Amino acid sequence: MVKTSDRINGIASSPIRKLAPLADAAKARGVTVYHLNIGQPDIRTPQVAIDVLKYIDRTVLEYSPSQGFLSLRKKMSGYYSGYGMDFSPDQIVVTTGGSEAVLFSFLTCLDPGDEIITTDPTYANYIAFAAAAGIKVRTVLTGIEDNFALPPAEEFEKIITPATRAILICNPNNPSGSLYSPDEMHRLAGIVSRHDLFLLSDEVYREFIYGGAGYMSAGHLDEISRNVVILDSFSKRYSECGIRIGAVVTRNESVLEGVMKLSQARLSPPLLGQIVAEASCGVGREYLDPVVKEYDYRRKVLVEGLRRIPGVVAAEPSGAFYVICRLPVDDADRFCAWCLSDFQYEGETVMMAPASGFYFTPGAGRSEVRIAYVLDAKSLERAVFLLSKALDEYLSR
Amino acid sequence: MVKTSDRINGIASSPIRKLAPLADAAKARGVTVYHLNIGQPDIRTPQVAIDVLKYIDRTVLEYSPSQGFLSLRKKMSGYYSGYGMDFSPDQIVVTTGGSEAVLFSFLTCLDPGDEIITTDPTYANYIAFAAAAGIKVRTVLTGIEDNFALPPAEEFEKIITPATRAILICNPNNPSGSLYSPDEMHRLAGIVSRHDLFLLSDEVYREFIYGGAGYMSAGHLDEISRNVVILDSFSKRYSECGIRIGAVVTRNESVLEGVMKLSQARLSPPLLGQIVAEASCGVGREYLDPVVKEYDYRRKVLVEGLRRIPGVVAAEPSGAFYVICRLPVDDADRFCAWCLSDFQYEGETVMMAPASGFYFTPGAGRSEVRIAYVLDAKSLERAVFLLSKALDEYLSR
Repeated sequence: MVKTSDRINGIASSPIRKLAPLADAAKARGVTVYHLNIGQPDIRTPQVAIDVLKYIDRTVLEYSPSQGFLSLRKKMSGYYSGYGMDFSPDQIVVTTGGSEAVLFSFLTCLDPGDEIITTDPTYANYIAFAAAAGIKVRTVLTGIEDNFALPPAEEFEKIITPATRAILICNPNNPSGSLYSPDEMHRLAGIVSRHDLFLLSDEVYREFIYGGAGYMSAGHLDEISRNVVILDSFSKRYSECGIRIGAVVTRNESVLEGVMKLSQARLSPPLLGQIVAEASCGVGREYLDPVVKEYDYRRKVLVEGLRRIPGVVAAEPSGAFYVICRLPVDDADRFCAWCLSDFQYEGETVMMAPASGFYFTPGAGRSEVRIAYVLDAKSLERAVFLLSKALDEYLSR
Repeated sequence: MVKTSDRINGIASSPIRKLAPLADAAKARGVTVYHLNIGQPDIRTPQVAIDVLKYIDRTVLEYSPSQGFLSLRKKMSGYYSGYGMDFSPDQIVVTTGGSEAVLFSFLTCLDPGDEIITTDPTYANYIAFAAAAGIKVRTVLTGIEDNFALPPAEEFEKIITPATRAILICNPNNPSGSLYSPDEMHRLAGIVSRHDLFLLSDEVYREFIYGGAGYMSAGHLDEISRNVVILDSFSKRYSECGIRIGAVVTRNESVLEGVMKLSQARLSPPLLGQIVAEASCGVGREYLDPVVKEYDYRRKVLVEGLRRIPGVVAAEPSGAFYVICRLPVDDADRFCAWCLSDFQYEGETVMMAPASGFYFTPGAGRSEVRIAYVLDAKSLERAVFLLSKALDEYLSR
């Protein structure tokens, strides 16, 4: 019988996918499930971005340019200027979500067998795309004790080989919520420069920074300007994950040329999504400031609540909308499943993402979960309460 | 200096891309360019599919399911039933255009180094995606003399090796406009079955069949039901190329599982495109019949016109909206460039796609061009007249 590829069979199913049927079953039993497991913001999309769809005056929904509309890229260029980064519209390729930016940059920067270094834990889908692209993932371990800070340069240099072509970071970080300091970023630039690597920097959570932490984009690292490839997305910024509009942004002409070849092969990014994205560029801090303030508030409520639970260690997130915490259990996969299959308190329970799905190193993070704060603060308080009740019951079984 | 991957550098730039600046320059000189080079239909998108955007009642443009909305897949299942093919909604994965269906099926069915057999000429972007996926393309030559019919089984079997994993067809064919007969399809099934291969069948032009030719989809080949992977798209069917909605359709569970892993990694297909696609499913033959009739009329006008030009050999297309013709020139790349850079008649000229961009075999099809009939019949007549004038002048230089 005809067989599928080794590369596809090598991609592990996410533990969260295994939990989905348990969550469905719980709901079928009438149990309310608080979803702490997902990265789908509940925040409203800017109204102007939804309204623009009402005024589409086209008779043919046709292909758009492979690089994306120039009008959109001009607005994006202006957006980067606002962050003190100089990227011309020509240095931006609009992609189908940040996901396509990840895949296209992998294919453009690395050949099959080449190695990429990222942090552990990491965004799980990097691992899937790396497998699809036939590239090898190496990781540097980061930990809850120092809020998942980047390890010293030696940790990277220990695993750099002649096959290493790129370092990949997510900053602010999914799943850890960490934000890399300017010092950490310059240290990274030193490694990248010494070993002549690409720095792929996934910055889709750029807007979501808390507690006055100083932000430095890879785009600010002038010393490695041509090594930097920024992967970006409108999804989280404007709570419009469904439009599938992202970008590869770089001053490296060869990378632009390579990404453009792939972009031409897939013809064009979504037309309608680009129209929504362009309209979204018109909203400014008056939309984003209250959103960031809201996330910051939820973050405090969540972290404080988690830390009040005996035995729970929660990292201090400075960005994105995730926190990783260590639970007083041996196997968080099993505990998360149990919360859905065996536990309920007053007809309610919680669904969390076992951190094992984000660790590349087998066995790492077994006691940890990732919690997304995409629910309102009241629901988060209740969810934390339910988690404490669940832990009580689980530990006293 | 940090270098991009060999795989990306190995993807040739399409000859049509090289012509684009010449076309722009011609337009800047005030010359009207008839675009015979593109596959963007001028046909109107169904009004109901555009209007549906006005009634989107959502406050968050959020992720949709990775497999695509069930409601859309149910409608697609019904559409296949209309063609006498039984595919359940579970056997359909909605993709971001037919392009993603191509890439995901390549990654799922073939490992780096594996071989895929397709026809020569072929859809140029298959070659780019194969390079991206690290897979090797082998081709069987088809020719203008027999309207690009599939060659006998021996031609396939001559190039089948232990690394061969799949045969890829486009039916009706872009770029040749050929439609494979039931006999040809059963012959293909025999090869696929004998060598236990995948049959990847790109059927995005399924609606566009002319002259009463009998249609057989790969989905009708019950004898190789589990080897068949259909690549589909809404783009051409409803003239909505910009929505980027396609599909992988198969009864092979391992392929579904593999494609789903990639679909989960890229999170979701475009939300808005799916809404448009679902609305489009509501229009039936009352939309499609006049469209097909219009293309059929254009086809006759075009082919008859081309055949009246001395020295021009035009294939007889039975499907899609392309025709390949051989011109009385040594180098169609050069002639197409000359039409844009040096020729004009009464302030007008034509832009055609040199067929060299569709041939995998170096040097093949050097005298051929692909002409798309996505202009109205009057414009096509004028374009053919301009082509004849251009040939006169070119040949008498």
